[in-house]
Amino acid sequence: MKKLKRSARLVELTQYLTSRPHTLIPLTTFADRYGAAKSSISEDLTIIKEVFEEEGVGELLTLAGAAGGVKYIPRLSREKAFSFMSDLCNQLEQPERLLPGDYIYMSDLLGQPSILNEVGKIFASVFADTPIDVIMTVETKGIPLAHATGTQLNLPVVLVRRDHQMTEGSAVSINYVSGSHKSLHTMTLSRRALKEKSRVLIIDDFMKAGGTIQGMVDLLGEFNATVAGVGVLLESGAVDTEDRLWADYVSLATLTEVDAKSKKIMVKPGNYFENEK
Amino acid sequence: MKKLKRSARLVELTQYLTSRPHTLIPLTTFADRYGAAKSSISEDLTIIKEVFEEEGVGELLTLAGAAGGVKYIPRLSREKAFSFMSDLCNQLEQPERLLPGDYIYMSDLLGQPSILNEVGKIFASVFADTPIDVIMTVETKGIPLAHATGTQLNLPVVLVRRDHQMTEGSAVSINYVSGSHKSLHTMTLSRRALKEKSRVLIIDDFMKAGGTIQGMVDLLGEFNATVAGVGVLLESGAVDTEDRLWADYVSLATLTEVDAKSKKIMVKPGNYFENEK
Repeated sequence: MKKLKRSARLVELTQYLTSRPHTLIPLTTFADRYGAAKSSISEDLTIIKEVFEEEGVGELLTLAGAAGGVKYIPRLSREKAFSFMSDLCNQLEQPERLLPGDYIYMSDLLGQPSILNEVGKIFASVFADTPIDVIMTVETKGIPLAHATGTQLNLPVVLVRRDHQMTEGSAVSINYVSGSHKSLHTMTLSRRALKEKSRVLIIDDFMKAGGTIQGMVDLLGEFNATVAGVGVLLESGAVDTEDRLWADYVSLATLTEVDAKSKKIMVKPGNYFENEK
Repeated sequence: MKKLKRSARLVELTQYLTSRPHTLIPLTTFADRYGAAKSSISEDLTIIKEVFEEEGVGELLTLAGAAGGVKYIPRLSREKAFSFMSDLCNQLEQPERLLPGDYIYMSDLLGQPSILNEVGKIFASVFADTPIDVIMTVETKGIPLAHATGTQLNLPVVLVRRDHQMTEGSAVSINYVSGSHKSLHTMTLSRRALKEKSRVLIIDDFMKAGGTIQGMVDLLGEFNATVAGVGVLLESGAVDTEDRLWADYVSLATLTEVDAKSKKIMVKPGNYFENEK
């Protein structure tokens, strides 16, 4: 046990809490760790709480009682999220991103740690109060987004594969229709990857008609698991409502127009911001 | 501009620095941000530096001069890394992980944010002083490891695909021999993913003879890029030296024995720890 001064305790506490989001830490942990009275630790936490709230970094939740403690909940205000996403939309509108078949190149953005970290925080803010056991995505481009969200929510990520892999053990496969081409595909999940009755948050990078999402939902059915929520970074706005295979989702950006001839891409913030100005 | 007390400044500085590893931040940024004299900020940073070093969290590098500032460098001591990896090795030795063909199931571990975060910190410590522009991995299981490392090193991740995807634009493909089965495969990298002369850190989850790594190195050649380092989480120890297709790598764990009959798996800490007791 080491005795620390308040200034050193504040540094350590901040570092300890921010590296363990959504984790309940009993006050005794800190009291023991720093050789300080619980009342001193409480005062420290009040200072941290105020700074976090002022900065819009997140919330410090204090739970009283025997099973109590403190929990850091990353929360990005909708205002900050909107400002970040508006900027990302501008980047997505760069004409050189347009690929044959009206695809948009965004792998560079999905490779940037600062962008992933921020999108992870936004998804974690959206679903902060939803009971979730695990995050699910399907390979490949959604993987870093799912993990960035898992980091902020302190939740494991389960990965659906396109083919059955020898490294996954026995697996459950389903077929699904990809809405955009009406073509048939297979997706596969290792039997041991998901516990029965898990509440699952589905995260993906792009959604058109939602066939891939519907496929993951069907797969969840095979595990007696349920959908706790669906979050997509970018949705295609060019889908008629009756063609939507999955309708209940949160999108952070919407692709409203793609014109190959004039190389024009238009992206606006997604349905998460719909009630905003 | 807001005036903050030292206690609040320490919380904000800690939060600000730890969420921006390997990023040089000029002292004026903080002085402006907190309405404080540079000398006060310097004193704050000294406190943080001491706590970080005492805790083994990382280093706070102060660069003097006009282009100076402060930079947080996550560093996990080799001792802490060894202790973490020893524990992970024990988990990998669980007999139920053994799959047909002597494959080891480890997708559950690669889905845990706390494990990924720690492995990312270890790789970031190994390569903290190596000049690197970008991290590269090949789909699929290495992706979260590459991103966890990228987060700690503040570096973008470039993803090599098995097939040419319509979302990647024009791409360069190469064929490579997978050492374990001597079978021929293809890997593909988008032309726009990698700048010429980039210094690339390759990260992957598993390496046997190193055919996949050699494939990525060949692909780098097509981009006039160079290998800055290779890090693998788990290497197979059952490879003769003359069969190794790639020899210069850092491994965090080594699979020394797999016996399907007795369901025995043996994993020990990798070559990174070889000079340790």
